[in-house]
Amino acid sequence: MTDTSRVFQLARRPDGAPRPDDFKLAEVPLPALGPDQVKVRNTFLSVDPYMRLPMTTLEGVHAPTDIGGEMDGGAVGEVIESTSGAMPKGSFVFSPLMGWRDLYVAGASSLVPIDPELAPLSAYLGVLGLSGMTAYAGMEYVLKPKAGETIFVSAAAGAVGMVVCQLASNHGCRVIGSTGDPRKAALLKERFGAEATINYRTEDLRASLKQFTPDGLDMYFDNVGGSHLEAALDSMKVHGRMALCGAVELYNSANYRRGPGNFFAAIEKGVTLTGFNIGLYAAQRAEMMRDLAGQLVSGALHGDETIVDGLENTGKAFVDLLAGANVGKMVVRL
Amino acid sequence: MTDTSRVFQLARRPDGAPRPDDFKLAEVPLPALGPDQVKVRNTFLSVDPYMRLPMTTLEGVHAPTDIGGEMDGGAVGEVIESTSGAMPKGSFVFSPLMGWRDLYVAGASSLVPIDPELAPLSAYLGVLGLSGMTAYAGMEYVLKPKAGETIFVSAAAGAVGMVVCQLASNHGCRVIGSTGDPRKAALLKERFGAEATINYRTEDLRASLKQFTPDGLDMYFDNVGGSHLEAALDSMKVHGRMALCGAVELYNSANYRRGPGNFFAAIEKGVTLTGFNIGLYAAQRAEMMRDLAGQLVSGALHGDETIVDGLENTGKAFVDLLAGANVGKMVVRL
Repeated sequence: MTDTSRVFQLARRPDGAPRPDDFKLAEVPLPALGPDQVKVRNTFLSVDPYMRLPMTTLEGVHAPTDIGGEMDGGAVGEVIESTSGAMPKGSFVFSPLMGWRDLYVAGASSLVPIDPELAPLSAYLGVLGLSGMTAYAGMEYVLKPKAGETIFVSAAAGAVGMVVCQLASNHGCRVIGSTGDPRKAALLKERFGAEATINYRTEDLRASLKQFTPDGLDMYFDNVGGSHLEAALDSMKVHGRMALCGAVELYNSANYRRGPGNFFAAIEKGVTLTGFNIGLYAAQRAEMMRDLAGQLVSGALHGDETIVDGLENTGKAFVDLLAGANVGKMVVRL
Repeated sequence: MTDTSRVFQLARRPDGAPRPDDFKLAEVPLPALGPDQVKVRNTFLSVDPYMRLPMTTLEGVHAPTDIGGEMDGGAVGEVIESTSGAMPKGSFVFSPLMGWRDLYVAGASSLVPIDPELAPLSAYLGVLGLSGMTAYAGMEYVLKPKAGETIFVSAAAGAVGMVVCQLASNHGCRVIGSTGDPRKAALLKERFGAEATINYRTEDLRASLKQFTPDGLDMYFDNVGGSHLEAALDSMKVHGRMALCGAVELYNSANYRRGPGNFFAAIEKGVTLTGFNIGLYAAQRAEMMRDLAGQLVSGALHGDETIVDGLENTGKAFVDLLAGANVGKMVVRL
């Protein structure tokens, strides 16, 4: 019986963009199972931009990770030992925290059972996981799109952005997506419902937005913050609305918490900016999952993935994610 | 017949806090009346914090005023000559632009008739003017308060803040107001419906907010921006909402357009920030006026004023306004 786990620790705080050796793979003992506990072998690990935040020393929702502390994140895996009647050996589970490792022991109540018949296991980290639900909550509960409205989506080919684009398109909205990669731009148009794309590395965001939508944007879904948020704010219609989901452009900078330089434009144009995160929508989980799974099964929604093999490559996968190497959801397959 | 007007010009761009000699009183010729025009003798002039913005070189809703260009702003006055059937000699009018001067000629269609029987003329610059309507729009159309909710109002004893506090109190909300003056703090409690006040010059905003409302704020009405907005953002409940009206703390700084340093807290707590200005609510003018006048006449609403005498003191009145010398609406009486 295996009684150790291989788990990533934070070796040092990244200076700007993280590097693979900012993380160290360690072997740690696993405790014996107590009552209502399970031992899980992870199958897929999630890497997500928000994981950059507790690597800083800034206090936020995630307390800073100590140097030498274990990394955490989402994972799906199989129960290989159990003292829980509700979660027997052979069942599959999602954990929001027990990523970045191969094996773990946890209380059954901290895990969510998942159905491997409905969708591939990895989908529970992506389109049916926190990424998909984040996109769903931002669209359906925050922005509430109407047919014919125009939406700008940043990091549009990422795990969240790709779902946002498709949900908006399915609502009859005109979708413009930003990406830094012509290959992703093609996918956005062919597969994710975007009518236009902007390459933020080579184009001027404001000028390209103006060209596509001279009257301005009704909505903006912000995954990027920084210069994207500023360009969007300058491009909003009067009474336009924004869903603030993330600020990945700022995560490698000294202070990701700062606001846009042109914030006053919100007063001038009557713009509504609503921040949100998926943790605020736990009560809507069943509704979100039902609707997302329905659209996935019907073919109305694609859940593209970028798969990286091998636990030992988790750090590198995270580094590559922040550099934009993924199409859709990036996961590590064990 | 008078054929010149005394009008303030911008003598130079203020460096930080404005000084009275940043403005110069000039005498300029008045044109003869064309068709459907009126000559108006102003009775009261408005001074408002937003007037600081076009004194900068930053592009905003108000284009920068040229050096030597005429100042503008709200005013009420009496028609003393008219070629307009709808606005005869002896009638009273409000102009959103023809302040900072004693006499002017303008098209009748650019002016709003006002009723001197309903309220004193100066009220049409304050509680029944843009200040009162700004407060009304922010409360009734943006924040939509519910009884029992807690609201924090910055610059609470100012022209807008004083109305916000009273409207919120009339809705059954708990009101906490910030001010820099113990005399205004007393008025806020005795007259404007505040349950508590914070002196931002002597107290720590976050600590005082925490003391009054340990569970956090439901709403924040922002007249100040800067450190007030940051303290409020850190003190909001999950799903709290903010009406962004002004940022007077920043108006003397190099860039009033910048956002709060802790903007990311909006994502963490699901806070909604809605910017607005009264120009966006022209269609609701009649409704706002009816409701405000009703509350004023019934005694449910006080419209306190600080009156400065003499056209020549308009620049000084504006300077004193930004330094917080006013209680309620500051006007210049001619």
